Amino acid sequence: MALIVQKYGGTSVGNIERIKNVAKRVARSYDEGNAVVVVLSAMSGETNKLVALTQEVSEFPIGREYDVIISTGEQVTVGLLALILKEMGYKAKSFLGSQVPIVTDSQFGSARIESIEDERLRAVLNDGVIAVVAGFQGVDPEGNITTLGRGGSDTTAVALAAALKADLCEIYTDVEGVYTTDPNFCPNARKLEKVSYDEMLEMASLGAKVLQTRSVEFAKKYEIPVMVRSSFNDAPGTLVCKEDKEMEKVVVSGVTYNKGEAKISVLRVPDRPGIAAKLFRPLTEEGINVDMIVQNISHDAHTDLTFTVSNADYKRALKLIKESTAAVIGAEEVVGDPNISKVSIIGAGMRSHAGVASKMFEVLANEGINIQMISTSEIKVSCVIDVKYTELAVRVLHDAFGLGTNEIVEEKD
Amino acid sequence: MALIVQKYGGTSVGNIERIKNVAKRVARSYDEGNAVVVVLSAMSGETNKLVALTQEVSEFPIGREYDVIISTGEQVTVGLLALILKEMGYKAKSFLGSQVPIVTDSQFGSARIESIEDERLRAVLNDGVIAVVAGFQGVDPEGNITTLGRGGSDTTAVALAAALKADLCEIYTDVEGVYTTDPNFCPNARKLEKVSYDEMLEMASLGAKVLQTRSVEFAKKYEIPVMVRSSFNDAPGTLVCKEDKEMEKVVVSGVTYNKGEAKISVLRVPDRPGIAAKLFRPLTEEGINVDMIVQNISHDAHTDLTFTVSNADYKRALKLIKESTAAVIGAEEVVGDPNISKVSIIGAGMRSHAGVASKMFEVLANEGINIQMISTSEIKVSCVIDVKYTELAVRVLHDAFGLGTNEIVEEKD
Repeated sequence: MALIVQKYGGTSVGNIERIKNVAKRVARSYDEGNAVVVVLSAMSGETNKLVALTQEVSEFPIGREYDVIISTGEQVTVGLLALILKEMGYKAKSFLGSQVPIVTDSQFGSARIESIEDERLRAVLNDGVIAVVAGFQGVDPEGNITTLGRGGSDTTAVALAAALKADLCEIYTDVEGVYTTDPNFCPNARKLEKVSYDEMLEMASLGAKVLQTRSVEFAKKYEIPVMVRSSFNDAPGTLVCKEDKEMEKVVVSGVTYNKGEAKISVLRVPDRPGIAAKLFRPLTEEGINVDMIVQNISHDAHTDLTFTVSNADYKRALKLIKESTAAVIGAEEVVGDPNISKVSIIGAGMRSHAGVASKMFEVLANEGINIQMISTSEIKVSCVIDVKYTELAVRVLHDAFGLGTNEIVEEKD
Repeated sequence: MALIVQKYGGTSVGNIERIKNVAKRVARSYDEGNAVVVVLSAMSGETNKLVALTQEVSEFPIGREYDVIISTGEQVTVGLLALILKEMGYKAKSFLGSQVPIVTDSQFGSARIESIEDERLRAVLNDGVIAVVAGFQGVDPEGNITTLGRGGSDTTAVALAAALKADLCEIYTDVEGVYTTDPNFCPNARKLEKVSYDEMLEMASLGAKVLQTRSVEFAKKYEIPVMVRSSFNDAPGTLVCKEDKEMEKVVVSGVTYNKGEAKISVLRVPDRPGIAAKLFRPLTEEGINVDMIVQNISHDAHTDLTFTVSNADYKRALKLIKESTAAVIGAEEVVGDPNISKVSIIGAGMRSHAGVASKMFEVLANEGINIQMISTSEIKVSCVIDVKYTELAVRVLHDAFGLGTNEIVEEKD
């Protein structure tokens, strides 16, 4: 008997008919002899509606009460699925984050899972019960409700799979797997059969939207095989797993983009040790995550610092820097730009291939696209560009690296 | 410094603007130097929407998962009110039933409060925090979410007032107080200044819809003064309190009706000891409450039993009796009728006045309204009639007992 964790996203539970379909899939897996833990998101649109309510009453709603409100969406779907499974004659029981419990830190709106107690779940699984767990939510050590941030249900699923030592974690979504890029931009985008944790990590954090970054970190750390597949058909999905020889041969396996960030530049800061710390400490204390950071070389003992934050944090970050931090570090000017996007190429094979970044820059230059910031890692290159060129950039990069067809850029030697 | 519990119903928190108005009222009471505990219902319509979802997937949805689903409405409103109060510069914190905790039995859908731990609430109140508690919900000893049944938020408020030894419990609603009858039927209905716990108990359980029965029982038991008033203006409300001399003078203080019940008759049952127990035990075990019971005198050693249940339980009760109980007790036929209504007259003064019931029967007979069942207590007389005569019956009784004007039927001696 295998233990399987299945996670269904918002569109997969978007209405009663779809939740009934999910129930059928869950029942099928159970009937095949598996112990099944189901993790659900809220009905699609529901969390946005709840967030909008909080924004109607507060400019910066994120905090304890925000999580109390937006965690209700998952509570409804787990109750409904458990009810449907019971109607079908199965034993089923819903669990909220606080009932598992899934213990997190107290960073409301983007809490991190600290521990999962597995006894209650194991007890019901041993009784043949299908456990239906609310994704996205947890409870802090003081008993406050917390949420894990957008896509948090993926993390719930993988973390549960790790805690329960599950054999497989299936992420059911509205796409059939992980693609070489967004099929909306490139109709010839190709579904990947397998992708390594590291590649997926870059793809997730860079905006592929298929899996939350934290969930892939968990999967990598505990070596949980994660199958991303569609809840609407039986097509094989994409397996996210440990890197193998096959994967290393592929130089670039995907092109991603992220329109969800904004850029803030702090200009003419006296170039003294400790400036960066003074700039970013207050942001961290406010729970604002900084993504890319670029510091130009110093001239006249002054330097410019540019960084990106998520759109959700942009106004708050800009206000904080303008109203207090800028004076503290002696910056002359602070300018923000929300109209940017980050385009990236990812591939495990980059480790052993030179010239990939250069090729990316050339491809963009040929289209007249100016690169505003650059960031690289072992297996990815990211460029910040004007948001209006996003689709064009993705398309030309996807073509240039031969991703759309069956021709894979392989090692020459 | 007084401790006040304020409860706001669904229409009072029906949208963001209204919740902001509630926040202003709460703040005003706090600014006057009171410690304030606020109890909220879900936004009006929200609970119905959630119930409809459960009914889409199950014929008899009431159970553990039902409560998981329908308890989310209050979770949203308490989060929003706490958020708004914080925006206004007050300290505020939301509490779910499980966070207080409000411990109930495990009768899902209609749980009863067993105990309230007051330490956490007292601690925050001592810190000057406004406590915002989700009404309608609790937690059973196993940690399952429970709900208290329709109007349960009233009970939450009064029970909290009792547990905290509050000075006053204010029930804010969309009407200005308790009326002699439904103003929709009788435009000359009059607002009562005061009403006794016992009268209110009869009015509540008979369908006045202003306060849940359980909440009045709590108020009576712990002698909590309850002020029913409007959240939309500052008009004085109706005080529900201990009976005094003044009240005893009033023979009939109100006429109520309840269209929310259905009638089931079990015909030609062999008249042996234990029949009633065998009939009603299975209903109790299914959590179905029986309201009125009438057993006719025996003829041919057979008898007929008729009883009423709430519309929500009607189908389930009828099915249970038809499919199993009828055979067990040897009944020849089981017939149900959902098209009934119960009309009642209530008054503390009935204790010392004869002829009130006769007058009621005469008034109904004069209009050609057939009485199907009769039930009386010390301070009320109820008649079950065809639902189509409800408005007429209420109107003629209201007039006959002189409730609409300032003429009060007083003691003659």
